Amino acid sequence: MSNADAKVLSQGPLPDDEAQWVKLTKITYQDPKGTTRTWESAERRTRPKDADIDGVGIVAILDKPGGKEMVLQKQYRPPVDRVVIEVPAGLIDAGETPEQAAVRELREETGYVGVPTETSPVMFNDPGFCNTNLCMVHVAIDMALPENQDLKPELGESEFIDVFTVPLADLWHECKRLEAQGYAIDARVGTFAEGILMAQRLKL
Amino acid sequence: MSNADAKVLSQGPLPDDEAQWVKLTKITYQDPKGTTRTWESAERRTRPKDADIDGVGIVAILDKPGGKEMVLQKQYRPPVDRVVIEVPAGLIDAGETPEQAAVRELREETGYVGVPTETSPVMFNDPGFCNTNLCMVHVAIDMALPENQDLKPELGESEFIDVFTVPLADLWHECKRLEAQGYAIDARVGTFAEGILMAQRLKL
Repeated sequence: MSNADAKVLSQGPLPDDEAQWVKLTKITYQDPKGTTRTWESAERRTRPKDADIDGVGIVAILDKPGGKEMVLQKQYRPPVDRVVIEVPAGLIDAGETPEQAAVRELREETGYVGVPTETSPVMFNDPGFCNTNLCMVHVAIDMALPENQDLKPELGESEFIDVFTVPLADLWHECKRLEAQGYAIDARVGTFAEGILMAQRLKL
Repeated sequence: MSNADAKVLSQGPLPDDEAQWVKLTKITYQDPKGTTRTWESAERRTRPKDADIDGVGIVAILDKPGGKEMVLQKQYRPPVDRVVIEVPAGLIDAGETPEQAAVRELREETGYVGVPTETSPVMFNDPGFCNTNLCMVHVAIDMALPENQDLKPELGESEFIDVFTVPLADLWHECKRLEAQGYAIDARVGTFAEGILMAQRLKL
């Protein structure tokens, strides 16, 4: 069996007292004119106490003979009932920096060993709907290292991740091709591709 | 008063039977090896029946004397209790195409009148956490049109949006500067900036 065989069997309302990972929050706020209003929000229950970042996404670019390639993943995601094209990513453990989490998650999910080179601003995934967020961490991969030639991912028993690479300069069209094949595109991958496309077209 | 005066006053659990906009879903699914598992997900209640896209984000680039600039917004978002730097965006109304929604939302939120030129794949905002998604629609703005020189946004009575523009080629550093000033960065803006940066650095 493969990622393509995964599927939703049934779904229904999740009462608050059964939820372990997610929750709904009712927010009372003062709007910019001083009027008191309410808003409904979704949150993770897993953010470490005193932390303000949920997770990291990882930009890992490989030097290949044909040009730069980006490390991507195919992973079945129950909330969208599709196999999603994503960057390597994961939640930050208590006590970790975003950079430490990025190096750890990249090694666990893909086997690649790397060094963090750049960290993005904290990015909010859907700030009208929920408070979830992440940093993007750029990780440099030295392809001369033996670990990066004989990859040994360490996946959890409920993790099923297919790692692949795509030419970076053609990421936008690759996203369109993958969508036409039935894959869902994660916002980080799609918007990153869009930035590359824009820079190429406008010669930025 | 201004966006900077908005703030959360209080917050607490939102019971399912009080929620009008969001909900939690318990999903039973078959994983890629055939094992039955459960997953917790958050969803919008507002997606039109028979539709599979929640909203649109809009990439609107202006030809300014000094170079290309991107239309962005500052908007207070209760779920993150911050003023967020976002692209113009909105939910798709029943019966609308993403392109129609993009032209309508851009006009309502910013006053700019434009023509759609490109639509992204559907992008999922946080597919391990929720099913919310959007298309990015690129809208061309003809600055010679009188409507685009005398902007007349049409905001709802609970919408407070400050529109501004930033030089496209420097969007990454602009995001870092805005974060340092206390603004939160939406994932679409940050990842788009990251793609531009990557294309510039690697000369893609």
